[in-house]
Amino acid sequence: MQEGQIASHERIDDLGCKGYRMIQNPNLFCFGMDAVLLSHFAEVKEGEKVLDLGTGTGILPILLEAKTQGRQFIGLEIQKESVDLARRNVELNGLSNKIRIDEGDIVKAEEIYDRSQFQVIVSNPPYIDSQGGLKNKEDAKTIARHEVLCTLEDVIKAASTLLQVSGRLYMVHRPHRLGEIITLLRQYQLEPKKMRLVYPSITKEPNMVLIEAIRHGKPMLKVLPPLIVYEENGKYTQEIYEIYGMENEV
Amino acid sequence: MQEGQIASHERIDDLGCKGYRMIQNPNLFCFGMDAVLLSHFAEVKEGEKVLDLGTGTGILPILLEAKTQGRQFIGLEIQKESVDLARRNVELNGLSNKIRIDEGDIVKAEEIYDRSQFQVIVSNPPYIDSQGGLKNKEDAKTIARHEVLCTLEDVIKAASTLLQVSGRLYMVHRPHRLGEIITLLRQYQLEPKKMRLVYPSITKEPNMVLIEAIRHGKPMLKVLPPLIVYEENGKYTQEIYEIYGMENEV
Repeated sequence: MQEGQIASHERIDDLGCKGYRMIQNPNLFCFGMDAVLLSHFAEVKEGEKVLDLGTGTGILPILLEAKTQGRQFIGLEIQKESVDLARRNVELNGLSNKIRIDEGDIVKAEEIYDRSQFQVIVSNPPYIDSQGGLKNKEDAKTIARHEVLCTLEDVIKAASTLLQVSGRLYMVHRPHRLGEIITLLRQYQLEPKKMRLVYPSITKEPNMVLIEAIRHGKPMLKVLPPLIVYEENGKYTQEIYEIYGMENEV
Repeated sequence: MQEGQIASHERIDDLGCKGYRMIQNPNLFCFGMDAVLLSHFAEVKEGEKVLDLGTGTGILPILLEAKTQGRQFIGLEIQKESVDLARRNVELNGLSNKIRIDEGDIVKAEEIYDRSQFQVIVSNPPYIDSQGGLKNKEDAKTIARHEVLCTLEDVIKAASTLLQVSGRLYMVHRPHRLGEIITLLRQYQLEPKKMRLVYPSITKEPNMVLIEAIRHGKPMLKVLPPLIVYEENGKYTQEIYEIYGMENEV
């Protein structure tokens, strides 16, 4: 399909940010709050070059382009349909000069990009350690959610190779994987430096963790205040309204 | 000093639990909220044998004896003055049949106790990685707070050796050490299974982390809801009142 075109089974969502919009395909993986919170958590400084490992719809490069002064944003994606969709999203928002979508495999990222060339890497990887028990291994949503084509270690290894020294990895994941995440990060010389847990409400267990790791950083983890999504009355908290760029009245 | 006796520079605090009281010496390390929250977080089942690594005043064995159906509680402590104080606290509460205080070094714990004999180990170890920059290395409070006589790794190594397979370690520590804590636990076959962050208030960074690790457990970390200490109006939260066994009106 031509870039910028939309098919009948697709929809267009407003990002509520600089007027940007996203084509989403309900048959593929649609971005969620994870990506929005990660784009808010990640720090990209002026002139920096950013890589998104497993970009899906292209949501992270597009939100980061909107929110930061980064110079260039690259999204790497293995699924051909998602690559096509992400490219049309870049085109739709007129961002072809800032964002590039590459078709390729995270496992082979070292062959695709030069080493130590990125200041920032972001990733919203598959969360679920499937351990071989899956049926539809070729289903697009399964690939986005389960570690079918790449594992947590693949993502961390690629980030470690491609980040320059002192470069930052920003990742969102599930808290129940935190033991493995921290061990693998440190095994690949990515020191966890900042962490924030996302709690659906003040009485609930967290369902997301946002983490910053710095290549060759020194051990000292700053754990941030809790990010609470809902008030007790079921409304979004003020902070979530602010992250989404909405007034506190939705 | 005789067990049960109190010196003029000491004071007696009420534990608000089964009428138990604690002699504290302001010249030594006095127990704080850390120990109380850890005693609440730790699970001790009926008949289990519990070791506290670095028991100080003996607060953890005494609170755990009060709150659980454990069979025997042992507190290991290196500082002679604290050993004396802890023994008097055991005596003061008439707990000599359930609690024993041993004088000894965590670093040599493997020589003091048989391997794999405990179902539960608890520890409120020194939090501060001093890296050789300390002056008063023989000061009792310095030893309790800084890693002068034992490091985080010493505590974890001792726990790994002395816990039986599937035995549980419960530890309270500072969140900024979490990267090291998780890496060391897993290095010594203690899998982090449960974690709770203690936030002074809902808008603040956490200042304590409570962690359960199971010897030879499988990777899967349950992160619990946030433990918030103060309401916005500066009063303790309901949960803190409940943990301290107080009515919500103090």
